[in-house]
Amino acid sequence: MDKKQIAILGSTGSIGTQALQVIEEHPDRYEVYCLTANNKVELLAEQARRFKPAAVVIANEARYDELRALLADQPDVKVYAGAQAIDGIVESGPIDMVLTAMVGFAGLSPTIHAIKRGKTICLANKETLVVAGELICNLARRHHAAILPVDSEHSAIFQCLAGEGDAQIEKILLTASGGPFRNYTIDQLATVTKADALHHPTWEMGAKITIDSATMINKGFEVIEAKWLFGVEPRQIQVLVHPQSIVHSAVQFCDGAVKAQLGVPDMRLPIQYAFSFPERIHLSSQRLDLFSHKLEFFEPDMEKFRCLSLAFDAIGRGGNMPCILNAANEVANRGFLDDRCGFLQMGDVIAETMNRVSFDPNPSYETYVATDAEARRVAAEIMQGGMRP
Amino acid sequence: MDKKQIAILGSTGSIGTQALQVIEEHPDRYEVYCLTANNKVELLAEQARRFKPAAVVIANEARYDELRALLADQPDVKVYAGAQAIDGIVESGPIDMVLTAMVGFAGLSPTIHAIKRGKTICLANKETLVVAGELICNLARRHHAAILPVDSEHSAIFQCLAGEGDAQIEKILLTASGGPFRNYTIDQLATVTKADALHHPTWEMGAKITIDSATMINKGFEVIEAKWLFGVEPRQIQVLVHPQSIVHSAVQFCDGAVKAQLGVPDMRLPIQYAFSFPERIHLSSQRLDLFSHKLEFFEPDMEKFRCLSLAFDAIGRGGNMPCILNAANEVANRGFLDDRCGFLQMGDVIAETMNRVSFDPNPSYETYVATDAEARRVAAEIMQGGMRP
Repeated sequence: MDKKQIAILGSTGSIGTQALQVIEEHPDRYEVYCLTANNKVELLAEQARRFKPAAVVIANEARYDELRALLADQPDVKVYAGAQAIDGIVESGPIDMVLTAMVGFAGLSPTIHAIKRGKTICLANKETLVVAGELICNLARRHHAAILPVDSEHSAIFQCLAGEGDAQIEKILLTASGGPFRNYTIDQLATVTKADALHHPTWEMGAKITIDSATMINKGFEVIEAKWLFGVEPRQIQVLVHPQSIVHSAVQFCDGAVKAQLGVPDMRLPIQYAFSFPERIHLSSQRLDLFSHKLEFFEPDMEKFRCLSLAFDAIGRGGNMPCILNAANEVANRGFLDDRCGFLQMGDVIAETMNRVSFDPNPSYETYVATDAEARRVAAEIMQGGMRP
Repeated sequence: MDKKQIAILGSTGSIGTQALQVIEEHPDRYEVYCLTANNKVELLAEQARRFKPAAVVIANEARYDELRALLADQPDVKVYAGAQAIDGIVESGPIDMVLTAMVGFAGLSPTIHAIKRGKTICLANKETLVVAGELICNLARRHHAAILPVDSEHSAIFQCLAGEGDAQIEKILLTASGGPFRNYTIDQLATVTKADALHHPTWEMGAKITIDSATMINKGFEVIEAKWLFGVEPRQIQVLVHPQSIVHSAVQFCDGAVKAQLGVPDMRLPIQYAFSFPERIHLSSQRLDLFSHKLEFFEPDMEKFRCLSLAFDAIGRGGNMPCILNAANEVANRGFLDDRCGFLQMGDVIAETMNRVSFDPNPSYETYVATDAEARRVAAEIMQGGMRP
């Protein structure tokens, strides 16, 4: 069997490191062709020593010399820096699959380059479809590039759809843990600290996505992604708060049958499923024990979790509105992590940015880039304004 | 599209009448070729008037004249009587699918005849695989006849396996409502009446299967069926008591992912899925509302539900032992319905019959017939003996 050559964009993050664990378990199937990171040179160098990729890229060019020095004794590992280098390697390397595990809008450009070369995308970067779902899906269709979800919820839906016709979906049941503040009142939410928000009840993830999960905007992003990945309308997507995080999501078909994927929360499963699809291969992980769980489902409170409601608004309006939502959220989220923005203020910043940035119903890639920049600027202004006494 | 020609064996029972509802909803897809019943001539005649099958068969020959008279004005419907007539029609008619919805050992012979002609079997008769799983599966393989489960639990498993490789099953999670006596003590079970047992908490079914469900031997039969249908060992099958009957069953794969099929209990779904497989078609049924349910799972109590434990013993021993189990249960079940046997005594009768009837590790069809007769005789003796003061 030929080994699949994998590029991991964002290899030092939570998804990236778990993807490397999966690859390490199956050296007969997978090989790392390329690793990229934003800033973590030490970890990137350590991964390069271990997995011997053909190339590594550090996105932050200022850290190029440092990385080069750390890998001076690894002549077979080419060292590059900068976002354009990532695009170039993804485009020109003998790569079968690209795992897009970097955070934020930066995921868009290399994904587009990979799709244009017909590579299979293992999509962990939410922003790709949130910001530019229509553009990406059209491109993938044209270039026959498969987009396989790595997100736990979308992987669950994708697994439930195996062997089923697409046209037979009646409803997608997208589960959400509800985050750490599920039972908080609005008043309690107003006083939430960064430390509170970084403590997610069921999943261990990076800081940005943990905050996105606490505000539930993350679930809104997933609604937008699900629309594009599975060709359904937002009204066909129901969000269910499921505090146990055992049912990772489900699909209701036209005959009323509901299929769900369940398991102990472990991101290696969706990562590996994307790598091994349509096969399944053994994964040494904790197995589900249904006897120790009671599975509960609640309707999400759209008032308390205003960001989720804003996401439904954004996808309803379409065009560049989800791009505005995403950019404003990146700024607000960063602000919250830097103690420059309160928990409930994040929603205010996003809503106000959505009001102010110019709407374009039919954006091109260039529009998205411009919208993203404008929305960040506007959101930052609003946030600063909001901090004044 | 050519209409699929369907034979419904046992059309007047619970599954049979629901199958006719499904067919009535899709007159463009399905046509009834043949209907059979044991004794209910009036209902059979009424169904024949409505669905205009080419043939009807009443298994009880004593009721032939009555049925003929009722259908005197339907010259296009041929009327037959007797078990052999069922075998003959299934074998010779231009039938695509045979729904085996009759109760008991009687399901075996026509199923074998249909398989030999390569017909697709929509299997609702549990005894076929419980009694003669190995023989039936070998025959189906040789004659390229598909066996599609109609039972709710096995249909759920079958749905979860769509698009998945068979070799990738790690475990089957077979759910059971636990019946009406889930929380009874042994002492309470000893005093259970027929009326108590006929009141099933979640499913409305025929009398025999409702009693089998109350003793949980029904779940034991399903373990045996699952072994044959899905090629797994009994140790790979876990029974979970799930009082809400929402998760109809689930499969755990080699990567730890669990896929489950959920829904409001409605037998039309598995019936229709067997008819429409591999497609799904619209079914007007109540949709699942997960907000109104808490899903719980418990380990079954093998001491209290001794019949379930006996079924695991029987499949563990193999050969004609499941046939003995089944025959003894039919006698004990009938005895209970006729007030000739207590609730807990049913287990005693079955256990003792399993001890007494001669074991054959490699039975032929003839052995099964002989074993069935012997086991019934022995079970009846034991039951009578047990009723003496």
